[in-house]
Amino acid sequence: MATNTTVVADHNAPAVTQILAEFVATHPSKGWSDAVDHEAHRTFLNWLGCAIGASDHAAARAALAAVNMLQPAPQASIAGRKDRVDMASAALINGITSHTFDFDDTHLKTIIHPAGPVASALLPLAEHIGSSGREVIDALVLGIDVACRMGNTVYPEHYDRGWHITGTTGMLGSAAACARLLKLNTQQTAMALGIAASQPIGLREQFGTMTKPFHPGGAARAGLMSALMAKHGFTSSGKALEAPRGWAQVVSTKSNWNEVTGELGKRFEISFNTYKPFACGIVIHPSIDACVQLREQGVKAEDVERIELRVHSLVLELTGKKEPADGLQGKFSVYHGCAAGLIFGRAAEEEFDDHIVTREDVVTLRRKVQATVDNSIREESADVTAFLKDGRKIHVFIEHAIGSVQRPMTDAALEAKFHGMSDAVIGADKTNALLKACWNLGQATDVHALTALTHA
Amino acid sequence: MATNTTVVADHNAPAVTQILAEFVATHPSKGWSDAVDHEAHRTFLNWLGCAIGASDHAAARAALAAVNMLQPAPQASIAGRKDRVDMASAALINGITSHTFDFDDTHLKTIIHPAGPVASALLPLAEHIGSSGREVIDALVLGIDVACRMGNTVYPEHYDRGWHITGTTGMLGSAAACARLLKLNTQQTAMALGIAASQPIGLREQFGTMTKPFHPGGAARAGLMSALMAKHGFTSSGKALEAPRGWAQVVSTKSNWNEVTGELGKRFEISFNTYKPFACGIVIHPSIDACVQLREQGVKAEDVERIELRVHSLVLELTGKKEPADGLQGKFSVYHGCAAGLIFGRAAEEEFDDHIVTREDVVTLRRKVQATVDNSIREESADVTAFLKDGRKIHVFIEHAIGSVQRPMTDAALEAKFHGMSDAVIGADKTNALLKACWNLGQATDVHALTALTHA
Repeated sequence: MATNTTVVADHNAPAVTQILAEFVATHPSKGWSDAVDHEAHRTFLNWLGCAIGASDHAAARAALAAVNMLQPAPQASIAGRKDRVDMASAALINGITSHTFDFDDTHLKTIIHPAGPVASALLPLAEHIGSSGREVIDALVLGIDVACRMGNTVYPEHYDRGWHITGTTGMLGSAAACARLLKLNTQQTAMALGIAASQPIGLREQFGTMTKPFHPGGAARAGLMSALMAKHGFTSSGKALEAPRGWAQVVSTKSNWNEVTGELGKRFEISFNTYKPFACGIVIHPSIDACVQLREQGVKAEDVERIELRVHSLVLELTGKKEPADGLQGKFSVYHGCAAGLIFGRAAEEEFDDHIVTREDVVTLRRKVQATVDNSIREESADVTAFLKDGRKIHVFIEHAIGSVQRPMTDAALEAKFHGMSDAVIGADKTNALLKACWNLGQATDVHALTALTHA
Repeated sequence: MATNTTVVADHNAPAVTQILAEFVATHPSKGWSDAVDHEAHRTFLNWLGCAIGASDHAAARAALAAVNMLQPAPQASIAGRKDRVDMASAALINGITSHTFDFDDTHLKTIIHPAGPVASALLPLAEHIGSSGREVIDALVLGIDVACRMGNTVYPEHYDRGWHITGTTGMLGSAAACARLLKLNTQQTAMALGIAASQPIGLREQFGTMTKPFHPGGAARAGLMSALMAKHGFTSSGKALEAPRGWAQVVSTKSNWNEVTGELGKRFEISFNTYKPFACGIVIHPSIDACVQLREQGVKAEDVERIELRVHSLVLELTGKKEPADGLQGKFSVYHGCAAGLIFGRAAEEEFDDHIVTREDVVTLRRKVQATVDNSIREESADVTAFLKDGRKIHVFIEHAIGSVQRPMTDAALEAKFHGMSDAVIGADKTNALLKACWNLGQATDVHALTALTHA
């Protein structure tokens, strides 16, 4: 392998580990705006729907079978399942299921899916130790802030190198959140962050396999255990995040410390969290959105001669699969995504079922989709033109796809998305009750009424 | 931070993951020389002594307290303790205790401590599923081969970057060993290696804290869980080790694939495993060895005016602490190591007790030790001269320290070292029986007689 690397260690970093530990341990409960607090509830709700939706996926069953070989104590619920396992194993499986459909939340600045590692650990811990809903929301906001700020620090170099940033920052978010829920003091929280710092989880090579959703699950578990260990006096470096041989400088050659310290406690990264309307990688959302809009303008699949996409280079790099053979491969095919958008007006998990991806009319339409890279098009945009058999030409330009910070999904749309994943697992009535419990989580005495609703 | 990095991905790596998986799954039982098999027994014995010795250390107690919050099932023994926990938690705690004293084995080509991650997972798994001793020895040889070959591939760049290579290769060794013990086929073993590849554990910044020994413990646990998940159908990339965004190329800019494929199944890395006679980092062993030899030549502490060391630069970089305040700091002080060697003729765990490190005669002598870097001295050597008050000058040059591949500890010396750690925990009689069980492990029907001896 060819290499040409010169890395100069930074010995003058601010005391990032201590700064974040003090912030997590001492920031006031609900020490942020109502908008931030509402976003936290949206984040939690979206996470839970995804986890319930994939709760009987083969990945969940395989992981649970492995966990069951440890004969776990029935401490906590697994979202969507009747099984109860120890809280760390519940964190693992919740994290896997929340990311299995690629339908979870996205912090667009870093493409971290922050709720997976953080909420997946928080809910079982809260259930076992009896935390209030307020404490859970507080910990969720703070944990996500830690993960995303550390992500900002090293992004994009860290991601470009091949790390799956959700799991390589997520254990820090999970450790911070669990430390908060366990009421650890600043010094203990620093130790929890330090123990977690040694455990980044995730390689991009795993994309397309079950190990991709394992990353947030493993990170959730690692963060929770780090906090439990710190609570009992386990020690780590107090400079584990920033030292020359600490996390940031080992996993990346970029470390922009201002991302940690800037507006800490004033700007909350959860404000920039977004939710996917489409059950696939974020890069093809603008293209799908455009095709949904073509459909709304009356374009029918049978009228299409061809569809021309002009897109950012990442679209073809990540999702350029022309002939997807099954649902999973369909998620890596902008061609299938566009066909689904135009035929169904949506691209939720059902539209990535094997039988849809191989259905004749869907295959026929996707083969009419042509994509070219246009360097003038940004990652969040797409330029789509439908050429119809009657000679008409219909053009749609998407600047920001639905689900972006600029065009967020409404609360009602989030509820509809939740129903789409949850109704088949726990039924529509229970889903309605669960949605109410999610919106009211910040006022709940404990999480037991909520967790009781998370399975059939 | 200043950066100047150009990394060119290697798309032409051999199929390392598949090659290693097939090797692990299909290599014949005891498919190696008697010398290799004997070395495996020495490795196991040395590992177990270290784990028992540190079994009541504060790090073990803190980790166990965290594990106990999960209410683990009593599946397996923890070396040195009466507690029984689930096999994955036993792997974690065994791994921590085996490395706590810094007294474990060392694969000198990579400074990996290979038994920690591998044996720590194997023994609890074998105990729970009823494996034979032969199967354990087979899995130990193969697991260590995987970890050390992958270490060779990326060393030294990977270590220099700041990774604690024991835990960042160890999960591969543990996954391989546990896959072998679980009798996984080639494809399942590849999946186990792949799941483990996403979980490198360890930053060098943690040196001097409990998180350092956590690294082999976490790696042991991660590898075991990866094998259990693969057994139940969890998937990962079949190129997780070698792909451009796979393990080797993400954690290092060096990847010498010949280290994986060269003489695979003929040369066994466990042959190059060594055992520490002194309970501290390997870099100061030549200096301590020299001082032990000065003592053997009749030099007494009270006769010394000064001791001059000429050493490799790493000695002062890693162990240059002039005034260690306690036992842990003493391990990072070549000055204390030399004083202990000359006063006691040894530097086992007792000589790094707090009260020894601060004892007046020890402090007086260590202040007479002067160290200078000499670029002509190799890492495995030391040039030591004692200047005595009567004007005499006694010179010792150590080319290879005791405990190196060139000057291995004898079996009897390994037993004496084991007694030094184990007698105080389980008594001398039980220790003698346990030593016998270790030497006979390859012939044992199962490991239950052995594990029954590992605690008081």
